[in-house]
Amino acid sequence: MNFCSDNVSPVAPEIMAALLSANQGAAMPYGHDDYTQRLNSRFAELFETNVTVFPVATGTAANALALACLTPVYGAIYCHAQAHIYEDECGAPEFYTGGAKLVPLPGNHGKLNPEILRQTPMGAGVVHQVQPAAVSLTQATEAGTVYTVAEVAAIAEVARAKQLFLHVDGARFANALVHLGCTPAQITWQAGVDVLCFGATKNGAMAAEAVVFFNSDLAQAFQFRRKRGGHLWSKLRFLSVQLEAYLEDNLWLKQASHANALAQKLAQGLIHLPGVNLCHPVEANEVFVELPESLIVALEQAGVQFYRWPDDDSQMIRLVTGFNTSEQEVRAFLALAKQHSLLPV
Amino acid sequence: MNFCSDNVSPVAPEIMAALLSANQGAAMPYGHDDYTQRLNSRFAELFETNVTVFPVATGTAANALALACLTPVYGAIYCHAQAHIYEDECGAPEFYTGGAKLVPLPGNHGKLNPEILRQTPMGAGVVHQVQPAAVSLTQATEAGTVYTVAEVAAIAEVARAKQLFLHVDGARFANALVHLGCTPAQITWQAGVDVLCFGATKNGAMAAEAVVFFNSDLAQAFQFRRKRGGHLWSKLRFLSVQLEAYLEDNLWLKQASHANALAQKLAQGLIHLPGVNLCHPVEANEVFVELPESLIVALEQAGVQFYRWPDDDSQMIRLVTGFNTSEQEVRAFLALAKQHSLLPV
Amino acid sequence: MNFCSDNVSPVAPEIMAALLSANQGAAMPYGHDDYTQRLNSRFAELFETNVTVFPVATGTAANALALACLTPVYGAIYCHAQAHIYEDECGAPEFYTGGAKLVPLPGNHGKLNPEILRQTPMGAGVVHQVQPAAVSLTQATEAGTVYTVAEVAAIAEVARAKQLFLHVDGARFANALVHLGCTPAQITWQAGVDVLCFGATKNGAMAAEAVVFFNSDLAQAFQFRRKRGGHLWSKLRFLSVQLEAYLEDNLWLKQASHANALAQKLAQGLIHLPGVNLCHPVEANEVFVELPESLIVALEQAGVQFYRWPDDDSQMIRLVTGFNTSEQEVRAFLALAKQHSLLPV
Amino acid sequence: MNFCSDNVSPVAPEIMAALLSANQGAAMPYGHDDYTQRLNSRFAELFETNVTVFPVATGTAANALALACLTPVYGAIYCHAQAHIYEDECGAPEFYTGGAKLVPLPGNHGKLNPEILRQTPMGAGVVHQVQPAAVSLTQATEAGTVYTVAEVAAIAEVARAKQLFLHVDGARFANALVHLGCTPAQITWQAGVDVLCFGATKNGAMAAEAVVFFNSDLAQAFQFRRKRGGHLWSKLRFLSVQLEAYLEDNLWLKQASHANALAQKLAQGLIHLPGVNLCHPVEANEVFVELPESLIVALEQAGVQFYRWPDDDSQMIRLVTGFNTSEQEVRAFLALAKQHSLLPV
Repeated sequence: MNFCSDNVSPVAPEIMAALLSANQGAAMPYGHDDYTQRLNSRFAELFETNVTVFPVATGTAANALALACLTPVYGAIYCHAQAHIYEDECGAPEFYTGGAKLVPLPGNHGKLNPEILRQTPMGAGVVHQVQPAAVSLTQATEAGTVYTVAEVAAIAEVARAKQLFLHVDGARFANALVHLGCTPAQITWQAGVDVLCFGATKNGAMAAEAVVFFNSDLAQAFQFRRKRGGHLWSKLRFLSVQLEAYLEDNLWLKQASHANALAQKLAQGLIHLPGVNLCHPVEANEVFVELPESLIVALEQAGVQFYRWPDDDSQMIRLVTGFNTSEQEVRAFLALAKQHSLLPV
Repeated sequence: MNFCSDNVSPVAPEIMAALLSANQGAAMPYGHDDYTQRLNSRFAELFETNVTVFPVATGTAANALALACLTPVYGAIYCHAQAHIYEDECGAPEFYTGGAKLVPLPGNHGKLNPEILRQTPMGAGVVHQVQPAAVSLTQATEAGTVYTVAEVAAIAEVARAKQLFLHVDGARFANALVHLGCTPAQITWQAGVDVLCFGATKNGAMAAEAVVFFNSDLAQAFQFRRKRGGHLWSKLRFLSVQLEAYLEDNLWLKQASHANALAQKLAQGLIHLPGVNLCHPVEANEVFVELPESLIVALEQAGVQFYRWPDDDSQMIRLVTGFNTSEQEVRAFLALAKQHSLLPV
Repeated sequence: MNFCSDNVSPVAPEIMAALLSANQGAAMPYGHDDYTQRLNSRFAELFETNVTVFPVATGTAANALALACLTPVYGAIYCHAQAHIYEDECGAPEFYTGGAKLVPLPGNHGKLNPEILRQTPMGAGVVHQVQPAAVSLTQATEAGTVYTVAEVAAIAEVARAKQLFLHVDGARFANALVHLGCTPAQITWQAGVDVLCFGATKNGAMAAEAVVFFNSDLAQAFQFRRKRGGHLWSKLRFLSVQLEAYLEDNLWLKQASHANALAQKLAQGLIHLPGVNLCHPVEANEVFVELPESLIVALEQAGVQFYRWPDDDSQMIRLVTGFNTSEQEVRAFLALAKQHSLLPV
Repeated sequence: MNFCSDNVSPVAPEIMAALLSANQGAAMPYGHDDYTQRLNSRFAELFETNVTVFPVATGTAANALALACLTPVYGAIYCHAQAHIYEDECGAPEFYTGGAKLVPLPGNHGKLNPEILRQTPMGAGVVHQVQPAAVSLTQATEAGTVYTVAEVAAIAEVARAKQLFLHVDGARFANALVHLGCTPAQITWQAGVDVLCFGATKNGAMAAEAVVFFNSDLAQAFQFRRKRGGHLWSKLRFLSVQLEAYLEDNLWLKQASHANALAQKLAQGLIHLPGVNLCHPVEANEVFVELPESLIVALEQAGVQFYRWPDDDSQMIRLVTGFNTSEQEVRAFLALAKQHSLLPV
């Protein structure tokens, strides 16, 4: 039982099969292969609009490279104080942007609040201050919640009013989408998103993310920045084919639905136990829950793998389900939790 | 027939098999998997000394990250004027080092000349000038030649005298090594190399290079720089296992020997044709050869794929063999060349 | 009446005279002049210890260059959320450090709180997070308050425990010192400070700040970073002589005492007026005070120059006194405030 | 006798007087003073066109900041291999541009050759290579020569054809202009220059250079980059007034004429001595001349100050005259040279 993260999962069999099938003979390097060449049209179909798509191997690279296309070096990027780009990328956005500033904003359940964004002083035109450039939100959020179409649109409206580009870190975009039940178009460009980092790694790829620009002007520098960042694979077919297989037959949506459903089961099974509090609504594939210390210890001692959150001293734990998490694992976990919950401390 | 580059090749079957075998169940992310954990000892055995090894997916990332560990932002890195890091990485070393200067030096057949290096004014301690930090050589070189142990040692001696670290871009290290017939230790740390970018992608991996530090002090910052550069895979096992399989049963050496032998065949077959001049000694898996324009055109029209070098107006072409190039392809190419060579222009 | 800032002031006559006296004949450039050569010993005397001193023309340059010597590119610098380096330097520290992260911390009256610093999670050794490198405090603070020796020592103790270097932005160091009545040594290196940006511009220089390293190891890269930043004057004597004249005959302390005393007068005169609230203790040369809107408008209409703080919508205003502010100006201001305070709104 | 550089000179009395006269009462900071406010119109008059002007204190800052406005981080700047920006600024252009590459080109007597520029492969659109962004020339050059209007126009024509912006490092622009006898407009924007770093420090200012944009679109980011670089003085009037005084009554041209004339005298006096070779045409205020070793030593021993060039082992020396060099000094130097020249070795 490993609920540490969705990135502990292996590669989906369908994607591994696609890698094997792409492994035939010579192919021109650096994206001049068939798989990469058809990515733009494949994603255009998915998003029902023209897009410019760049595959990269990691979410950190996707986010940092995308943000670097949205801000001058003296720019400000507004994000949630718990955003992955702010907390967990060792300064990659600062590195790729040439030192732009990420401005942390508060917000409930991991979500940016449009009103707070609106009221944040941004110093546009004031030479002493970094200049407003972009806003970044995470979909699904770091708290396992999902922005509705209306919520994204409300942030986009403030962003537009303040001339900020809107970036979405979609490391768990699939999980968000199946929760929302809307189209990819509705929750992205139709709601005002300029660029989406469309994650695949956490949901079954080996190492593949697509940076999807809905505004092609913003994409001009991307190819040079990607090469300069060392993120242009020579054998790029093996990255692109992962994305192709990920979309094929709605694999991505099926896998995300599976993971989301199991997260719901975990949450439903836990909330009835004594001393258990759900910390955030469970809308994607993550469960944040407060447990009695005795129960946390018992689960740890039983060999279940998960993280206390945000750190080792916390009473809150995070449970993440993946495309390959099984119903049995969830049932076994809940049985264990129930059993230790009933024991006297 | 595709002689454009060794990066047009697919993944070696042994490496693809290893990827499949690693695709079992959960594994802790970011290098806390078994494959990554045993890389240091596997490479230590190979190099007969303690090493600190970091896997990354591209050669550009390997070089740029390694160099960033060797130089202050105001440093100078001395390299050949045709070095890949100088010419072909869109400024990645400048990006990762924070703006250090790559100083291009001349040298025959792609090799740095220790005497030229010695005589280059470096302005150590002069505040107006970037400060000497490192020297970088490519093994095998961009001209398809190979530094002997004595040649590396001679450069290392100058480097040591000038307090420069010695970096080796080993995108084709395997090809160099089989040419030399020495041990990996002899041509690296025993000759004075501080850090080697040990390439695998061009010789059969999907996307895998190992940055091998022989001086562990230099490696301290690497993990942070790698994460910050977006080069730390979450599912790192799939990168590390490529390197493991690459070394297993001397796969890397067998494949490089094969490619080198075919490059020799190409060279031997071409040099007897009228108007053909070999431009550099063929010591690895690349052949640089001047051909009559009519012959180049004839080969192009016959559908053979290769690059004129250094650009489209050149009379010199570059032919690269890979682990998967076949004897038949080489024979067919030579037959074609011979046939068109005999035709009246 | 201009209370906008101490940087609206001219150059002190004594410093202008020193510039004239230095303007004789040739002097070797880039610091090889007599004025610069004796700076180290002059500051060593002042601080009663060996120091390494570098003159630069602006406070932003001083802070950003100093911080760049204290942190790796992937480092974190902890500072107050209202710190000048965080809010008012257009990202200069991020630029000079190569993208290190400034982490904003709360604290009353512009001061860092050692307990908050101690409890801030820093992720030392965690590859996903920027690495703890330095703490920066401002003396006097952006709220016009002054850290006591004990307060600096308490922060230094946490810093030491967490292996953070301690930087002080001393743009108004003179004002702080005369308030404290201690020696420069006591409030800096004896309390645990590693590097002080010793401001002179706001207190009477034309454009001169001294970066004072108490830890000479940290100073090694400064000269190269300064040159690279374009901050090494060729005719450096004209920068250094400002600092010499600033220290001569305790000019700096006299001028700061004068400014501080007038700030006290302003505060004392204002607090008895109806609807007036002092927002921060007045310990240096700045007064932050809440006034009735009618009174603010009346003062503005009377032509008094000052800033609403932190922005144009605020009811709080900031009044800054300088070495050249006169008693008459203060009296006239208070008379005006009193007069408009008594009027019916 | 100090012929080391024109930056060993003091401040011209007229400029010092202007500093004194600007030292009256309060003035709003950061350029909101009268002196700075009228710079644009003053320079517009001088250049007979609209310009956007920014004063900074050093030539390195002027060049690096200007270049940062002309290139993306992945850009290439073509310059002479002896250019100050390439050789003598400790990597400031790389720092300010975020790691753009300076590509060194050969050329006689310090001048870029338009034909060489035209033939330089630039890899426009090739993702592996830095992208052509700007060309930079130095006027007067590092060899003391001056580009004619036709020469600048020829370079500008190549630049335009290759979509490169044209930057001029005019640290000695005054010296070049008086040599040419044309208008400032003719040798700059009318010949195709986009931005000029208009030096004043070497020719009599304390620390003042003007970055003059003829293309205001390019200037948009300058103010933020300047602040971020720590180059926005708070008491900016004291920088701007230097430039005003420098232009007043053609002080700059008078001083440059004086220096140029004395350089001519030095050259004319030296070339008739045995064993003396003029290395470059003397067109500004620098003389590069090969002397017999015995003569160099004799001059050194007599206490004359100058540099062997390019380094201490050279037989070539550089003599620089300044606005304050006197006829007597030149006569005395020549007498000394003549005397030691006649002595048996």
